[in-house]
Amino acid sequence: MSIKIITISREFGSGGRTIAKAVAERLGFDFYDRALVELIAKESGYSKDFVELRGEDATSTSSFLFNLSRSSSGGYEGISGVSDKLYVIQHNIIRRLPEQGTCVIVGRCSDYILKDCPNALHVFIYADTQFKSERIVNLYGERDIAPEKRLEEKDKKRKVYYKNYTGRIWGMSSNYDLSLNSGKLGIDNCIDIITNLASHS
Amino acid sequence: MSIKIITISREFGSGGRTIAKAVAERLGFDFYDRALVELIAKESGYSKDFVELRGEDATSTSSFLFNLSRSSSGGYEGISGVSDKLYVIQHNIIRRLPEQGTCVIVGRCSDYILKDCPNALHVFIYADTQFKSERIVNLYGERDIAPEKRLEEKDKKRKVYYKNYTGRIWGMSSNYDLSLNSGKLGIDNCIDIITNLASHS
Repeated sequence: MSIKIITISREFGSGGRTIAKAVAERLGFDFYDRALVELIAKESGYSKDFVELRGEDATSTSSFLFNLSRSSSGGYEGISGVSDKLYVIQHNIIRRLPEQGTCVIVGRCSDYILKDCPNALHVFIYADTQFKSERIVNLYGERDIAPEKRLEEKDKKRKVYYKNYTGRIWGMSSNYDLSLNSGKLGIDNCIDIITNLASHS
Repeated sequence: MSIKIITISREFGSGGRTIAKAVAERLGFDFYDRALVELIAKESGYSKDFVELRGEDATSTSSFLFNLSRSSSGGYEGISGVSDKLYVIQHNIIRRLPEQGTCVIVGRCSDYILKDCPNALHVFIYADTQFKSERIVNLYGERDIAPEKRLEEKDKKRKVYYKNYTGRIWGMSSNYDLSLNSGKLGIDNCIDIITNLASHS
């Protein structure tokens, strides 16, 4: 197992992005979070804010998986709707990333899109509500709605989005190679575990 | 976080028991797998074979969680059926283990039973079907039915048992602190990750 690509899926507030960034820095891998948003915005013509908002949180009542057809080039055809179009662009960009070198990718169904990539390590970061609540208040400040409610709303959207585009249950261990409770293990231990696995692969 | 108890839940054939035993040896922790079966057999009066067979694989159509009532001593009362009685004995024995020192416990809903134990680390070990199939054929030999079918049947029973007694979905990351794909990461890496976490806690 030679790890060249790391995908990090994460619950809101779990520190998944912080862990991903630190892992990328320690390993000297490219880091795709905002950089991925920029690529998708450029290719789709949508604004970065729009891509950020709709690129992994959009809720949809239509089932993408039942409606799509696959073209011979490996892309998707016959889909409709802004979210679906955005997903297809996102999907195709993420599929090309392994050809461009080593990288860490945050969210955006990258675990599913690269599930057959032999050099990918798929990680899920989550934590208990108290840990995440304190973290989002420290990072993003207080809001009118309680932090617990903010967590619930954000992750509910991610869950629905993931189910719609992958057909899988978000947070099931079997989707990933490694799932870590950052609240219990600590952010630093999570960074160490992932970095060590990739360094010694 | 000072880890004194490690629970290891595992898919059949994933190497979870092997990992648990090695971790216990490396840390000098007691190891509860057959030892737990013996304790349950002794306390229940059932044979070890019966406890082994029915202690985590039994299927039941009745919902234990809806029928139980809790006594003031923390035990359960008002339950019926062999599997339920066995579960209650198992539950009470596992609940007492943290008072008796450091240990590694394999399966038997121990992650759920000790979910509020502050010094427990809950681990789930799983792997892809090919890895598990090869492993069970190497370990237990060929059978009349295909290894894939043996895996499916065994884990289906564990899933139903777990759902019945805990109300939770077996294999959801959020049930555990750490979930590891032993097929992808390798048995030795799994042992190292768990041992390091416990050693430096």
